[in-house]
Amino acid sequence: MKAIIYDGKLKYVKNYPAPLPGEGEALIRVLLAGICNTDLEIMKGYLGFQGVMGHEFVGVVENVNNRNRRLIGKRVVGEINCGCGVCGYCMKGLQKHCPDRKTIGILGKDGAFADYITLPADNLLEAPDNISDEEAVFAEPLAAAFEITEQLHIKPTDRILVLGDGKLGILASLALNLVQADVSLAGRHENKLQVAREQHVKTIKFSDLEMTKQYDFVIEATGSADGLEFALQLVKPRGTIVLKTTVAYGKEMNLASVVIDEIQVVGSRCGPFEPVLRAMTRKLINVKPLISAVYKPDRVSAAFKKAGSREALKVLLDFR
Amino acid sequence: MKAIIYDGKLKYVKNYPAPLPGEGEALIRVLLAGICNTDLEIMKGYLGFQGVMGHEFVGVVENVNNRNRRLIGKRVVGEINCGCGVCGYCMKGLQKHCPDRKTIGILGKDGAFADYITLPADNLLEAPDNISDEEAVFAEPLAAAFEITEQLHIKPTDRILVLGDGKLGILASLALNLVQADVSLAGRHENKLQVAREQHVKTIKFSDLEMTKQYDFVIEATGSADGLEFALQLVKPRGTIVLKTTVAYGKEMNLASVVIDEIQVVGSRCGPFEPVLRAMTRKLINVKPLISAVYKPDRVSAAFKKAGSREALKVLLDFR
Repeated sequence: MKAIIYDGKLKYVKNYPAPLPGEGEALIRVLLAGICNTDLEIMKGYLGFQGVMGHEFVGVVENVNNRNRRLIGKRVVGEINCGCGVCGYCMKGLQKHCPDRKTIGILGKDGAFADYITLPADNLLEAPDNISDEEAVFAEPLAAAFEITEQLHIKPTDRILVLGDGKLGILASLALNLVQADVSLAGRHENKLQVAREQHVKTIKFSDLEMTKQYDFVIEATGSADGLEFALQLVKPRGTIVLKTTVAYGKEMNLASVVIDEIQVVGSRCGPFEPVLRAMTRKLINVKPLISAVYKPDRVSAAFKKAGSREALKVLLDFR
Repeated sequence: MKAIIYDGKLKYVKNYPAPLPGEGEALIRVLLAGICNTDLEIMKGYLGFQGVMGHEFVGVVENVNNRNRRLIGKRVVGEINCGCGVCGYCMKGLQKHCPDRKTIGILGKDGAFADYITLPADNLLEAPDNISDEEAVFAEPLAAAFEITEQLHIKPTDRILVLGDGKLGILASLALNLVQADVSLAGRHENKLQVAREQHVKTIKFSDLEMTKQYDFVIEATGSADGLEFALQLVKPRGTIVLKTTVAYGKEMNLASVVIDEIQVVGSRCGPFEPVLRAMTRKLINVKPLISAVYKPDRVSAAFKKAGSREALKVLLDFR
């Protein structure tokens, strides 16, 4: 099968062996896959991953090994973490925190930048008919945005600032807007801010931000290790910073103001797919304006170059 | 009056002008005062404070300017933050987060290393008769330990690790032990660990810690900027790190695991005095074994040298 692998270098391979579904796993034919900033970080050494890249996808179930055969032929999206199934975290439905977990395209399991991928059938959710492949492929990154309201009680009267007008920042601002809180998105790129503004998010250039401690919540989605110290200048005493940025490098920082202002810093990663599919079916969030380009997999170099460019938002790989 | 001031250098002064109580303030004759690590950080430039140092004290009210005259002649301890009284934080009883606050010996107001100090009468609590001066002077640092249970729901079934066998680490382990949770204190100094062990805290040397993610709560009280990354190796996914350390310098760190493990990092500062005085009156926490030395104020250099030494815990200044 065709696959995009990383083995120290990014490579397009024509004859990668197709995966075999293990017990309880589905074999999924990939339709569309999305390039995430985490993929770009992996190429800088993040988590030391090697293998088939990619964790954002929509596909069709071709077969299921001993479970949920009703999924065969269905178009699906899938949760990317595969737990051991028996530990305390898995028992609570927190497979993503299982100490023995695998995560497609990130940790110990081949990913979605290929004609086929395998995942436990229990990880899969059917994509509703009224959303396109181009929308369904956003289920995973939008779930990461919904994780914020899954973890924290955000009140409709709260003042929220999302820092960073990348994909995750825009998706977070759109997800938080559903709470009807006072949400602003701050960034550097007028074209990206516009995508959020057209869906009722207030937007502001970084350079126009009033640098006072004024927000109940600051969502740090800058993709830069500098983001936390920036957020600390904007969050109210006793407020909350949601940390979304994972980068491969460290940064010198002084966290004294976390203590002095008794700030809560909450790390936030993968999120729940079901509410995302509900919001998408109801057409409450329009992800399509985030698509900057679609490439066939043999043009992987161009696709990754585009994904890494300053003006781009989501770049998709088309395996159809 | 006698006073210990910091003006770029630590100085003992014999004829510092005595403070005049403002409207609503009490004039307090200091009996005993404690040297805190924050005092040592101030001497490294922390917050740029200059003036009379000190914020841990017990004293006797000599006079009150237009409020609470019933306090005159009483022995008191006092909350160290003075808010504006009219902002949203002050209205909620959170004077310590008032953006215009003053904090004795730390921010904009002379402190307790002097014969006299002034504080709003509303900041004062009478010290119960059955606790000595040597115990009452611990009300402020012990309140900082009680702030942890004030901010967070710590369950009796939680596993808790306190990192750092300094004064705050020991006091935090003693305060958390009252919840009857499974509390361990980790540190480097056998003599300090022993103080906690004699009051039923489990103790462990840093070098004997099993470096796995096993604790629901890790209380970071190492006094070192390295403490957070150390705590991240010990806290469970979805667990909580309470950050108590404020230091004047920054440190390179990578917070990716905060995001990956969805850790909550909560800054924690000054705490509530009332429950501390209850616990002290009931003799549930014995602070006296933490006293390493008592000096008269004219021996300030020796006192600070002792307070900064590796083996010392609390050093007191005796103004009686």
